[in-house]
Amino acid sequence: MKAVRLHKFHTQPVIDEVPEPKISGPLDVIVKVGGAGVCRTDLHIIEGQWDAAMGTPLPYILGHENAGWVHEVGSAVTNVAVGDTVILHPTPTCGLCHACRAGDDMHCENSEFPGLSRDGGMAEYLLTSARACIKLNPETQPKDVAALADAGITAYHAVRKALPLLYPGTTAVVIGAGGLGHIGIQCLAALTATNIIVVDRNPDALKLASELGASHTVVGDGSQVDAVKDLTGGLGAHVVLDFVAEQGAEMDGWNMTRPAGSYYVIGYGGQLEIPTLDIISTERNIIGNIVGTYNDLVELMVLAQAGKVTLHTRTYPLNAAPDALADLDAGRVRGRAILVP
Amino acid sequence: MKAVRLHKFHTQPVIDEVPEPKISGPLDVIVKVGGAGVCRTDLHIIEGQWDAAMGTPLPYILGHENAGWVHEVGSAVTNVAVGDTVILHPTPTCGLCHACRAGDDMHCENSEFPGLSRDGGMAEYLLTSARACIKLNPETQPKDVAALADAGITAYHAVRKALPLLYPGTTAVVIGAGGLGHIGIQCLAALTATNIIVVDRNPDALKLASELGASHTVVGDGSQVDAVKDLTGGLGAHVVLDFVAEQGAEMDGWNMTRPAGSYYVIGYGGQLEIPTLDIISTERNIIGNIVGTYNDLVELMVLAQAGKVTLHTRTYPLNAAPDALADLDAGRVRGRAILVP
Amino acid sequence: MKAVRLHKFHTQPVIDEVPEPKISGPLDVIVKVGGAGVCRTDLHIIEGQWDAAMGTPLPYILGHENAGWVHEVGSAVTNVAVGDTVILHPTPTCGLCHACRAGDDMHCENSEFPGLSRDGGMAEYLLTSARACIKLNPETQPKDVAALADAGITAYHAVRKALPLLYPGTTAVVIGAGGLGHIGIQCLAALTATNIIVVDRNPDALKLASELGASHTVVGDGSQVDAVKDLTGGLGAHVVLDFVAEQGAEMDGWNMTRPAGSYYVIGYGGQLEIPTLDIISTERNIIGNIVGTYNDLVELMVLAQAGKVTLHTRTYPLNAAPDALADLDAGRVRGRAILVP
Amino acid sequence: MKAVRLHKFHTQPVIDEVPEPKISGPLDVIVKVGGAGVCRTDLHIIEGQWDAAMGTPLPYILGHENAGWVHEVGSAVTNVAVGDTVILHPTPTCGLCHACRAGDDMHCENSEFPGLSRDGGMAEYLLTSARACIKLNPETQPKDVAALADAGITAYHAVRKALPLLYPGTTAVVIGAGGLGHIGIQCLAALTATNIIVVDRNPDALKLASELGASHTVVGDGSQVDAVKDLTGGLGAHVVLDFVAEQGAEMDGWNMTRPAGSYYVIGYGGQLEIPTLDIISTERNIIGNIVGTYNDLVELMVLAQAGKVTLHTRTYPLNAAPDALADLDAGRVRGRAILVP
Repeated sequence: MKAVRLHKFHTQPVIDEVPEPKISGPLDVIVKVGGAGVCRTDLHIIEGQWDAAMGTPLPYILGHENAGWVHEVGSAVTNVAVGDTVILHPTPTCGLCHACRAGDDMHCENSEFPGLSRDGGMAEYLLTSARACIKLNPETQPKDVAALADAGITAYHAVRKALPLLYPGTTAVVIGAGGLGHIGIQCLAALTATNIIVVDRNPDALKLASELGASHTVVGDGSQVDAVKDLTGGLGAHVVLDFVAEQGAEMDGWNMTRPAGSYYVIGYGGQLEIPTLDIISTERNIIGNIVGTYNDLVELMVLAQAGKVTLHTRTYPLNAAPDALADLDAGRVRGRAILVP
Repeated sequence: MKAVRLHKFHTQPVIDEVPEPKISGPLDVIVKVGGAGVCRTDLHIIEGQWDAAMGTPLPYILGHENAGWVHEVGSAVTNVAVGDTVILHPTPTCGLCHACRAGDDMHCENSEFPGLSRDGGMAEYLLTSARACIKLNPETQPKDVAALADAGITAYHAVRKALPLLYPGTTAVVIGAGGLGHIGIQCLAALTATNIIVVDRNPDALKLASELGASHTVVGDGSQVDAVKDLTGGLGAHVVLDFVAEQGAEMDGWNMTRPAGSYYVIGYGGQLEIPTLDIISTERNIIGNIVGTYNDLVELMVLAQAGKVTLHTRTYPLNAAPDALADLDAGRVRGRAILVP
Repeated sequence: MKAVRLHKFHTQPVIDEVPEPKISGPLDVIVKVGGAGVCRTDLHIIEGQWDAAMGTPLPYILGHENAGWVHEVGSAVTNVAVGDTVILHPTPTCGLCHACRAGDDMHCENSEFPGLSRDGGMAEYLLTSARACIKLNPETQPKDVAALADAGITAYHAVRKALPLLYPGTTAVVIGAGGLGHIGIQCLAALTATNIIVVDRNPDALKLASELGASHTVVGDGSQVDAVKDLTGGLGAHVVLDFVAEQGAEMDGWNMTRPAGSYYVIGYGGQLEIPTLDIISTERNIIGNIVGTYNDLVELMVLAQAGKVTLHTRTYPLNAAPDALADLDAGRVRGRAILVP
Repeated sequence: MKAVRLHKFHTQPVIDEVPEPKISGPLDVIVKVGGAGVCRTDLHIIEGQWDAAMGTPLPYILGHENAGWVHEVGSAVTNVAVGDTVILHPTPTCGLCHACRAGDDMHCENSEFPGLSRDGGMAEYLLTSARACIKLNPETQPKDVAALADAGITAYHAVRKALPLLYPGTTAVVIGAGGLGHIGIQCLAALTATNIIVVDRNPDALKLASELGASHTVVGDGSQVDAVKDLTGGLGAHVVLDFVAEQGAEMDGWNMTRPAGSYYVIGYGGQLEIPTLDIISTERNIIGNIVGTYNDLVELMVLAQAGKVTLHTRTYPLNAAPDALADLDAGRVRGRAILVP
């Protein structure tokens, strides 16, 4: 089959011909990929940022945001059948550890992360497990929803964690109205009545943000912290959801957070430098966020199928993966790029 | 009356003769001080660390940790009467703002902080308000409990916030077994069955920690992060309560926190420097903590009166305030120093 | 001044000429009433249902749902001034007890309930306290918002408590789309993406429910439990909000609640008869609800001023209070009846 | 193998010779039973109380509280191996449904309940699944811990749910200090600083309760509601944990619950009859409880292995199952009866 493989850090991945994956365990599932999202994390993988944490031997197939159709199942699989349309939770989990049992399967002690820790979904077929499959209505087009499998779940997970803080009368700032942020805005609008302020450098992204539910938009031109303060009585926001967290956005995000407020880190690449006095004198929190749980994705699919979250995507054939990555890197993608094998 | 006043940053406070405070509003309360705690924050005030945040004009009376007897009350005070033994919540609050109404009175929009934002309790009399008074059994000696009014409430507040994370099978690290930490250990032991690891540079402090409920103690000799990892299967602790947060303790505390865990900042003085990738890849949290609510102090007094939290204190006469501050600065105080006017 | 007073149970209240209330304490506030809601509880008061709990001596002025303008303030009032437009939290609270301090002021140990425990707002002037006043935009018409002060806060309080249970993919049933229910539906629609099923005997009420956000409506014609089961895969709803809780609605509500679900009692008048085996074998909960907190009302006013909750009201002059009560009793009021002095 | 089977409702179960269970699925596990607890629910099963809910065809093997050693495993089992000492979560779950994924596996849509819905553990061997096994230290004796598998988990589950309500200064009532209650008392003592009042008809049970951590004991002689009110300033308890919930205990439990408090139903057999006015005027809650989650049992084992929960048991050989049931029915068992095959 064709697959997009990374052979060397700091070089573009290559379209290779590789063997199809095989079923080996009773809970294995092979999915014919219908859509594979292209994510800023793929750029970071190519740059080698994840090598220390993952140590995955090269070459391997990229792609951690996938949907498709069940192609083959192991002997003990009961929850999906060949032909089912599915979206895939990004990290197949064990179901047996404390985290899986606690509804916190993102912290599974035995999970894998196809596309980061082993072969991913930028290919014709992907090996995953029964526990990762969410069955969809047969008429759903995988390419239309694939971006929910990572960009979507990550945005939803952070928003859902913040919900108890976002009662009427509060303000939430969204930094970055791109692939993740444009979903985060819609989740906030669907699940809260909070006042939504969106910060982005790109005026087109802000235009989209307004259409999706932002109450106010702020151009990230250097005065964004002051602008948010002005919109919040000088105090800052109860919740800041930072989908960028690099190139200075991270300190902006912290500085836009009001006393007793919480700064949610979702993007990455930058560094926080914060005196502990600033943390305690205002009793602010910094909340880490990584992807989300299987149930997060199930719930997000409910919002999507009700039309409350819609995706702005641009499709590319599998062969055009390098173009998609280049477009993303250059800021030419509104919403999310999707490879269609 | 006699009072301990700071006249100039970076110099010792002075024992002055000043006028007694007067009742001016219907909810004012004047307390005859029976015990005023000496806190590391007093050292930080003298060093000018709080000047930017507070801007309180010098000279003013130090002392933000107070208990005593009600001496005079305003016309509308109903909850205490002259002669009552009281411990004082450190920040008299308005009772009318959203935070006060939400049970989060530490974030009162109109609160004052005697000893930081105006005259405090290192004096014979202290002006406070009805809302700050907690009535105690008449036989309670103010000097025996005064340290609960700031050290105690602060430790209790952080522990109480962490309780939902500390189910059986978890580990909590306490960094610093001093004035606050020795109370925090007792609160953990009274309210959870978590495994308690205490880190301190001082062997005597660790001895006290073991007596108060620590399961394990670790000397802060440079290998403390590794030692905690060794005690936690290589993962670190679910919760780290950092009562120091300066001189490197802050990065130690972060590095001792396991994936999906939370690092509680309670001490201050240092600086965190953390890549956002480290925050998101492990989904860890950094939780700010400042003093606590009135109800926190009420609950802590229940623990204290049941003998579940006991204080290790050393008393000094009011005139000896400079000695108490010097002893604290030199690490010569086990537990808490208390001035008795 | 004119006032609507109850002289005897089981008889209609009477329009009396009575003295205006006077300021006696420093935190007292007298409000010129601009709108006083007429509530099913007023019918229950007249029937004597609240006499055992309240024991208020007759005659007294009815009216526990009030908005107006500040007419006079006590010497220590700081949060409102004469002329301010205000809506009134129904139970002036002490601000000093554990419940008030915990953000649970509905359970204030020292609260009063004008219109139930003493003279209420169906009059030209009402005595309340500073803590009960929420200041509104000056252009707000008290008669337009008065119904939020009791019907609104009660519906909002119950919905807000249920929010953590109402993630996407869940179902909430609302029983009764009247004065409270029509607000509850809007709160659900504004704050969740849950599937909303509304049950009512009255087709007009169901029509209104659909306009306000119900996904499905069910006529309460005897088959309502089965109808809800049919709409929920045979299981029932995750949350049932019962704004009726009498005449059989109470057992219907319980029976519509799915395993692990929660039945919220808001209306009253009926009796639950439930084997403990039914409770434990399904692990269902029964949740009591009474009015709401001051902050609940503040948050609801945010929704109202954003146009996310709109009231369906019908105004009557104060003299027509008996007509309003009769219309309510006969089911002739869509939404809420409001007296305008 | 020998097994204790129920052939007919309202008659004693019989010791039969039956075939050993066989592995049929890749996740099946067969356990050699080392201890099988005897529970009041077994009496209720014999009385036919569970027939309507379960409909299990007779005869079948009783026993839903089991520990032992792994005897054989299916081909895909990874978490336990032959020879491991294990305690068994009572309801093998699917791991795939929303409830399992949410950490609420008690509400698994596909779970079984050996001993209620199919053959249980009062036998030499028991068929269960990998997901139900909790591996223990090899030196643990199954008969010493078996009672934790149902009595223990059920008590722990209810206490854990109540923890957020049980801050210092609160009161918890435990009704019934028998098989479940004596564990519940220890869990409360280990995990809270609440004031514990225990109500039981049996003075010996109350003596044990005092040894295990009760602050006060109340003889259930008819004046128990008044006695609890007297001990709680006339208000009742913040939390009532009713391990009886029959023969009048259920209404006592409700009546001992203070305003804004919660009544936890754990036992069963009686009927609640409560006017909805009583529920709303006090805003009290009734909380259902059934067994507990896998993680509940894991956490309880931590308490048990730390010596914070100890069991009072009496062992019987498997053949003596009828004696054990008779002793339980007659109130002759302190703590829990355990069959040892």
